[in-house]
Amino acid sequence: MEQVQLLGMWLSPYSYRVIWALKLEGIAYEYIEEDLSNKSPLLLQCNPVHKKIPVLIHSGKPICESSVILEYIEEIWPQNSLLPCDPYERAIARFWIKFADDKSPSISKMSRTSSEEQETAVKDILEMLETIEEHGLIGGKKFFGGDKISMVDMAFGAVAYWLGVIEDAAGLKISEAHEFPRLQSWVQNFKEVLIIKENLPDRDKMFPLLKRRRDVAGV
Amino acid sequence: MEQVQLLGMWLSPYSYRVIWALKLEGIAYEYIEEDLSNKSPLLLQCNPVHKKIPVLIHSGKPICESSVILEYIEEIWPQNSLLPCDPYERAIARFWIKFADDKSPSISKMSRTSSEEQETAVKDILEMLETIEEHGLIGGKKFFGGDKISMVDMAFGAVAYWLGVIEDAAGLKISEAHEFPRLQSWVQNFKEVLIIKENLPDRDKMFPLLKRRRDVAGV
Repeated sequence: MEQVQLLGMWLSPYSYRVIWALKLEGIAYEYIEEDLSNKSPLLLQCNPVHKKIPVLIHSGKPICESSVILEYIEEIWPQNSLLPCDPYERAIARFWIKFADDKSPSISKMSRTSSEEQETAVKDILEMLETIEEHGLIGGKKFFGGDKISMVDMAFGAVAYWLGVIEDAAGLKISEAHEFPRLQSWVQNFKEVLIIKENLPDRDKMFPLLKRRRDVAGV
Repeated sequence: MEQVQLLGMWLSPYSYRVIWALKLEGIAYEYIEEDLSNKSPLLLQCNPVHKKIPVLIHSGKPICESSVILEYIEEIWPQNSLLPCDPYERAIARFWIKFADDKSPSISKMSRTSSEEQETAVKDILEMLETIEEHGLIGGKKFFGGDKISMVDMAFGAVAYWLGVIEDAAGLKISEAHEFPRLQSWVQNFKEVLIIKENLPDRDKMFPLLKRRRDVAGV
């Protein structure tokens, strides 16, 4: 029998990308919480290059990097397609997943950095939101790929949920709803999807931790 | 009849990734050289988000980001497979392509930056080479994926060729051959592949340009 394990960390949007995809496909898995301040021998053995979560272990074989894991899930358990069937539409989806991978780190930077670095992070986040609004969510679609949630929406999970909590912890609102109407509407649609709604880290648990990180950063 | 166009720039390893893949698949295409100091309306229209080359235009539809273009080429023209068939091996390949995407920018940074930034770039490049040697090229394989060139090798094109030219232009040798025997052997294998050998930018043309860049950077 095949065994599916996920090494994750409760606060990480990258862990949640994988959790959402597994839930959408209806795959039973064992979740193993990692203490990132004291990484387990299993994590170090599975991801010797980056030593980072998430790692999916499928029948003993480790797969690292959340966007690579999602492609793997799509290939192994294709029952609920996470990518469009048409190759051109798949390329567009992969373009936006890469964009999310490249730009999302600004969001976690915001909760960790000094004033000056925070200013850069805020500028980068704002540029990211503008790009999503102007180019990513055009044509009145409910989700990035149309009427159904896909890998692209999951890739932007940090924008949909984590950003708001980090803004509140920082006492700083990066954007107003009226500036990004398409983005705001997508955030609502995303958070209403059952597998998302039922699988998000607890805001009350996140909040003090994010505030503490900022206090440590001295801002 | 389907039309294939490539917007590229002769110095860019990212352009060459796409050129190699198209050549390997035997796809006829029109190459359009971009002047990056005066970007064409076609480039700005095709890649409004990043405004960067390469862009593949297939029957009028633009695809951006070289690693996304390679996945698209693999799906549209699968005659010479650029990725392994096995889903787990594909995941490993995608892990290394992402690694190449994330780490290669240090190589071009080395030819542009001030002394201090150059020091960081050199450190990052050395780390990248160590990781490739220690984790990427294990098991005595000729290429990353085995006996045949694949998308992963193409993704590391900047390591195989551009790095050496940039080192010479900078008068700085980052690594010695004996430190990275597997990597050196891979570089040789890579440069002996016909489609690679016949499609590389001219070293004599690159050299003065790279030296000028460094003079402008004041190092």
